Amino acid sequence: MAFAELWDSLLPVGRDPRTSGYRRQAFTDVDLQCRVWFSNRALERSLRLQTDRNSNLWAWWDRPGGGAAVVTGSHLDSVPDGGAFDGPLGVVSGFAAIDLLRERGFEPSRPIAVAAFAEEEGGRFGLACLGSRLLTGAADPAAARELRDGDGVTLAAAMTGAGLDPAAIGPDEELLGRVAAYVELHIEQGSALDGLGAAVGIAEGIWPHGRWRLDFTGRADHEGTTRLPDRRDPMLPYAATVLAAREAAAAHGALATFGKVTAEPGAANAISSAVHAWLDARAPDEVTLLALVAEVAAAAREAAAAHGVEVGLRRESYTPPVEFDPGLRARLAGALAARGITAPALPTGAGHDAGILAARRPAAMLFVRNPSGVSHSPAEQAERADCEAGVVALAAVLEELAGR
Amino acid sequence: MAFAELWDSLLPVGRDPRTSGYRRQAFTDVDLQCRVWFSNRALERSLRLQTDRNSNLWAWWDRPGGGAAVVTGSHLDSVPDGGAFDGPLGVVSGFAAIDLLRERGFEPSRPIAVAAFAEEEGGRFGLACLGSRLLTGAADPAAARELRDGDGVTLAAAMTGAGLDPAAIGPDEELLGRVAAYVELHIEQGSALDGLGAAVGIAEGIWPHGRWRLDFTGRADHEGTTRLPDRRDPMLPYAATVLAAREAAAAHGALATFGKVTAEPGAANAISSAVHAWLDARAPDEVTLLALVAEVAAAAREAAAAHGVEVGLRRESYTPPVEFDPGLRARLAGALAARGITAPALPTGAGHDAGILAARRPAAMLFVRNPSGVSHSPAEQAERADCEAGVVALAAVLEELAGR
Repeated sequence: MAFAELWDSLLPVGRDPRTSGYRRQAFTDVDLQCRVWFSNRALERSLRLQTDRNSNLWAWWDRPGGGAAVVTGSHLDSVPDGGAFDGPLGVVSGFAAIDLLRERGFEPSRPIAVAAFAEEEGGRFGLACLGSRLLTGAADPAAARELRDGDGVTLAAAMTGAGLDPAAIGPDEELLGRVAAYVELHIEQGSALDGLGAAVGIAEGIWPHGRWRLDFTGRADHEGTTRLPDRRDPMLPYAATVLAAREAAAAHGALATFGKVTAEPGAANAISSAVHAWLDARAPDEVTLLALVAEVAAAAREAAAAHGVEVGLRRESYTPPVEFDPGLRARLAGALAARGITAPALPTGAGHDAGILAARRPAAMLFVRNPSGVSHSPAEQAERADCEAGVVALAAVLEELAGR
Repeated sequence: MAFAELWDSLLPVGRDPRTSGYRRQAFTDVDLQCRVWFSNRALERSLRLQTDRNSNLWAWWDRPGGGAAVVTGSHLDSVPDGGAFDGPLGVVSGFAAIDLLRERGFEPSRPIAVAAFAEEEGGRFGLACLGSRLLTGAADPAAARELRDGDGVTLAAAMTGAGLDPAAIGPDEELLGRVAAYVELHIEQGSALDGLGAAVGIAEGIWPHGRWRLDFTGRADHEGTTRLPDRRDPMLPYAATVLAAREAAAAHGALATFGKVTAEPGAANAISSAVHAWLDARAPDEVTLLALVAEVAAAAREAAAAHGVEVGLRRESYTPPVEFDPGLRARLAGALAARGITAPALPTGAGHDAGILAARRPAAMLFVRNPSGVSHSPAEQAERADCEAGVVALAAVLEELAGR
C-alpha cells in the first residue's frame, strides 16, 4: 500500500523543529510547498490538476461522459502548532485509495477527484473553511478579500503574493455541478471510536458553532502609579468573562473556549489600553448555542461596566447545525458492512469543509480512530494500522459510489 | 528659552501615526534616531559626547580639575505605545537647563553632564533600568547578554546590530567615580502635584517593586471536540489569577497588574497549550510586597491544580525600596525655596534610573505636573508652562550643586 510513502513525503513540510507542531498557514511559503506536494502526487498518478478560482486544489481521475464526480479529500493547512493528521490524513488517504482501486483494476463509471480546500482552519484570516465557503457562496468574496491576518496583511495581498488571483474568488456553480457527492476522511477529534473499539466511523452531523470577537477597551496607564480605583484595566473584565464562559458552557452541556487573546500595548509595565479575545462556542443545537453566547456577552458587559471598560462583541463566523445526507450515510454504512468493516455513527463538534459542502451537495465523513482524542496539537496521533484501515474503508466507499 | 525647539525636534521620532503613541525600543532603528538626536544636541552645545560601555549616552560640560560632576538626564526609550514625556522630558530639560545657565553667564565649578540611560523601560528585553543596572553592577553582564526580546533576539545580537559592543557591558567604576550626584527630572506618573496646585515636586523615594513571570502549561486540544472535563486549559487558571491579584492588591493597599499575556499556539480554535503572563507588583514596603506576591502565587497554584495545569513563577526583576539621599533632597528644596518655587515632596510607585543610581551615588528626582495623571499611554501630557517651570527648577538645582 502506498499510504506510508505518501504520508512520509508530506510529513516534513512546515514542521517546527522546536515543538514538532505544524505551521502550514494559507498562502505562505509552507502552503506553497504543500501545493507543490499535491501537484506532484496528482501528476505522478496522471490525475488532471486543477486550481479552482478559490485556490482549492483538485486532482481529477477523469471519466469523459461519466457525469458528475465522487470527490474525496480534506485540507492541508494547519492551526499554528497543529498536528500532522487534521486535514492531511484525508488528502493522503484520497490518493492512497485511488492507488488501491487501480491496483485492483477498478474502472470507475464516473470521475473521482481528490480535493484540498484552502484555509480550512481559518488559522491565518480567522474565517474557517474559507475555500469551501467561497466555492459554495457561503462567504462574500468582497468581504473575504479584506480579511486580515495577524500582521495586517489582507487575503487579497496574501493571495497575490502567492501567485493567485484574488479578483477571481467567489461562487463556482460550474465546478459545484461537477460534484455528485463529497466524502471527507478525517482523524477523529475526540476518543469516541477508541471507546467503541472501532478503527473507523461515520459522521452523523456537526454541532452548530461559531466564533465571536470581544474587544475590551480601557485606558493605558502606568502600572506603578495609577491607583486601583482610577484604573480602567480591560484585562480584569476579560478574565471574568473567561471564567463565566466556562461556567455557562458546563451548565448548558456545551463548549466555550478562549484560545486567542492579545493585549495592547502588551507591555509588562503598562496597564492595557485594550484586550482583544476570541470566543469559540459550540452546542448540540442552535437554541442552546445562542443562549450560551448571550450569557457570555451579559457577563462580559457586567464585568466591563464594573471597571469603566467598554466591550464590543462581533460574530466573526457561524455554522448552523449540519446533518449529513441520510441516503449517502446509508450507502457508506452498507458498503463498509458488506466488507465486514464496523463503522459506528458519531456526532462531532468540529467544523469541516464537508459541513459547508453539505448545504449544496450530498456530503458525508469518515473518521479514523484517535486513541488520545487530542487534536490541534503536536500530540495528535493515529496508529498506522488505523490509517491503513481508513484507506481501505475510503476505497470501499469510492467503489460503491463510482462503481458500475 | 530653548525648551520648545528642543522638544519639537525630538517629537516626531518613533511616533506611530495610527495611535500617536511612541515605539522607541532599545537598539532598534528608532533608538538609533534618538541617539543621533542626542549626539546632535550635545555637539551643537559643544558638550563632549560619550557612549559608555553600557550604551548609555553622556553629554559633558567639562571643567578640568573641577572634580566629580553633577549629572542630570533620564532616558529616551519608551514602552510600546508610550507617551512623549516619560523619559525624554528629563533629557530635553537637561539640555534646556544648560542653555539657561549659559544665557545667564553661569560658570560651573565642577562638570555638569546630561545622561540618557539605555532600555530604562525594559520594553524590549524585560529588565527595567538595564543601562543603569549594568553601570552600577546591579545586573549581571553575562545574564544580560542572553536576555531575549519578543522575537527571540538576544541583547547581544541587538547591540551588535546597532553597532555597539555587547562584550564591553558591565560595571564601570571609573565612570561612576565621576558622578558626584544625579538629579533626574521626570513627568509625574500620577496627579498628586495637580491636586496640590504645584508645577514641580521633589521625590521622597520609590516603592519596592518587581516583575514576576507566570507560565501556565496545559495541553493543546481541539476546541470543538474536547469535553470540558478532559481539558487542561491554561487560560482558566490565568483568568482566576488576574482576578485574585487585583483582590489581593486592594486588600494590601498595593498595586498588582497583568499587562502582558501571550497564549500558545494562540489560535481561535485551539485550546492553549500554554499561557505566559507577567505580574507587576508594587507596595509601600517590602513585607507587604512579598505577602502580596505570595498570595497571588498561591491563588495561581490552586487554580492551576483545579484544571490539571502546571504553573511556574519566576522573578524577572526586583527593586528594593529607595529613599533618595536626604541631604541632597534638602539642598534641592532649599535652592527652589530660595527662588520662590514651591516643590512638595512625593513618594512614587514607579522605578527610575535615579532609583538604581541611588544605591551607589547621592540621587534625587524632580517631578513635573501631569494633570490627568496618565502615563505609559499616548494620552500622557504636561502643560508647556509646567515643562518650562521644570527647566527653571532644574537650572536652579544645577546652579546650587555645581556653583562656586
